[in-house]
Amino acid sequence: MRLISGPSLALAVSRAGGLGFIGAGAGSDLSILPAILQEIASLISSSQIPNTPSGILPVGVGFLNWGADLELAIREFAKLPLKPAAAWLFAPKSTEDLVRWTARIRGVTQSKTKIWIQVGTAASALEVVRACKPDVLVVQGCDAGGHGLVQSSSIISLLPEVSDALFEAGIPRGHIPLVAAGGIVDGRGVAAALMLGASGVCMGTRFLASPEAEISLGYKKAIVDANDGGSNTIRTDLYDRLRGTSGWPEGYNARGIINKSLRDSKSGMDFEENRRLYAEALKLGDEGWGKEHGRITTYAGTGVGLVKSIVPAGHIVKDVLEEVKVLVPWRSEN
Amino acid sequence: MRLISGPSLALAVSRAGGLGFIGAGAGSDLSILPAILQEIASLISSSQIPNTPSGILPVGVGFLNWGADLELAIREFAKLPLKPAAAWLFAPKSTEDLVRWTARIRGVTQSKTKIWIQVGTAASALEVVRACKPDVLVVQGCDAGGHGLVQSSSIISLLPEVSDALFEAGIPRGHIPLVAAGGIVDGRGVAAALMLGASGVCMGTRFLASPEAEISLGYKKAIVDANDGGSNTIRTDLYDRLRGTSGWPEGYNARGIINKSLRDSKSGMDFEENRRLYAEALKLGDEGWGKEHGRITTYAGTGVGLVKSIVPAGHIVKDVLEEVKVLVPWRSEN
Repeated sequence: MRLISGPSLALAVSRAGGLGFIGAGAGSDLSILPAILQEIASLISSSQIPNTPSGILPVGVGFLNWGADLELAIREFAKLPLKPAAAWLFAPKSTEDLVRWTARIRGVTQSKTKIWIQVGTAASALEVVRACKPDVLVVQGCDAGGHGLVQSSSIISLLPEVSDALFEAGIPRGHIPLVAAGGIVDGRGVAAALMLGASGVCMGTRFLASPEAEISLGYKKAIVDANDGGSNTIRTDLYDRLRGTSGWPEGYNARGIINKSLRDSKSGMDFEENRRLYAEALKLGDEGWGKEHGRITTYAGTGVGLVKSIVPAGHIVKDVLEEVKVLVPWRSEN
Repeated sequence: MRLISGPSLALAVSRAGGLGFIGAGAGSDLSILPAILQEIASLISSSQIPNTPSGILPVGVGFLNWGADLELAIREFAKLPLKPAAAWLFAPKSTEDLVRWTARIRGVTQSKTKIWIQVGTAASALEVVRACKPDVLVVQGCDAGGHGLVQSSSIISLLPEVSDALFEAGIPRGHIPLVAAGGIVDGRGVAAALMLGASGVCMGTRFLASPEAEISLGYKKAIVDANDGGSNTIRTDLYDRLRGTSGWPEGYNARGIINKSLRDSKSGMDFEENRRLYAEALKLGDEGWGKEHGRITTYAGTGVGLVKSIVPAGHIVKDVLEEVKVLVPWRSEN
């Protein structure tokens, strides 16, 4: 949710009982981090969020490690009077990068900022746990919107396999909480993830259709309009190439709603012509989105078909928690 | 599980509390159906399975509709003194074919044989329900092994979307039981599917590693050895082409374990050379399978990493039922 999840979305999620993350992303995006976190700090000063330890800002910050500048990030973290509750690390060039980031963030925040690391296979889960001892492991399945592994299973089999692999490596179940990501948009998905062995879930696509998401109304409408998420979204590198996004490590692509750009590409349209039309579509504003005539990249997960309306982020969290209570009553008592 | 699930596997599943299916498949396979069903009838005569209505054989029969001969199937059904509990219809050339099959099977069995229809999208679920009024809808997600849609989501988002689509079309929840398929190999997967709105689940890959599965030991060992099902299996049409399987309608391919055939193909090996080496591998017997040097097609779902040993089919069913009882106690009381 790079540049989509800002102060108001993250804070709305945290206020409602979740943990909101700022999509800080990579490269020069990081320079806006202090201003964003300062804004959050000022927003919460008047209405402290319950259960937030002192010295902690009740939001997390997400990094795309392949493109993020460690020194810049650490400098900014050092300046912060309140440390973010969590740093989410994803898509490094190597596991060594994760080791460095983990150690430096823990150092500069006196371990106030918890380390969340996202993986998409059982092998990488084991490797990351051994190398970094993260506080939380995010396990992303193939249904997830936006970037993830080209090749992966859904959380249905991935979450139990990661859980078993850690257990067989001597790590007691629950010792490192597993957060399931990919295809979860309501209480049914959350309850399913809990059954698979998750301690929590990550939701992205559902929050795209919230007033707080920092995307255009055209994007939000495309999310609400889409159905049959399995057949109307696709994992591809085309959308990145059209947008001019480069630098992702080998093995990643991104899931988005199938639109005219993709259909034209499949029909053999020359890439340069497709990119020219993409640039034209960007000038249309909200009209540039949509599965029929839209061309603008619309990252979304397969759960998009379950998103039927634009709902305030806090309501989304509260509704999901209520649904989970009904489905898994004894888990909600804790 | 065409030609993999025969009398002993299907009956072992049914005896343990599930409903076993014979993979009758397509084309000339159907001519062996009477002998198989006769064998099952003789096997159960001495030890009747509890709760089986009279006149019913406690197994189902699966058809690949694109290649199955309706007249032949109906002729064979007519001869049977005991009618199979269910007919599973999958991958027709058109919905009209499903309508014909549904009506003819109901007719020849006086509706003793229940109609199960497998779909992979919410749109096709609606279409099939309106056209055929099936007794059961099987909802297959992308994690499933063997054949399925090229483009689909996992059951994490697909099952709730199908459930909601039927509900919004005026069909009360549970009226047509939804059976979840794809990536489920143990009680955790079953419990997750129940949370998503399923009434039951279909398991295939787990039963490949059972003594009863009619495949070679080499295939079974490849299943047990595989891990990280998301990165070590792939959806492709290569395995069908190497085996000489043709006739599947547009939009289907199959998931199998990534082996040397696939890696060679990705590295640019000429298809004819790959096929020649495939034919050589077939002569090796059990040694022809395996992810390192094996070349023989090894259809399997992403749950393959959770399959650690060859276990009798009845034990698999009983273990799963026990696991579900622990995870979802109030559902198991029914």
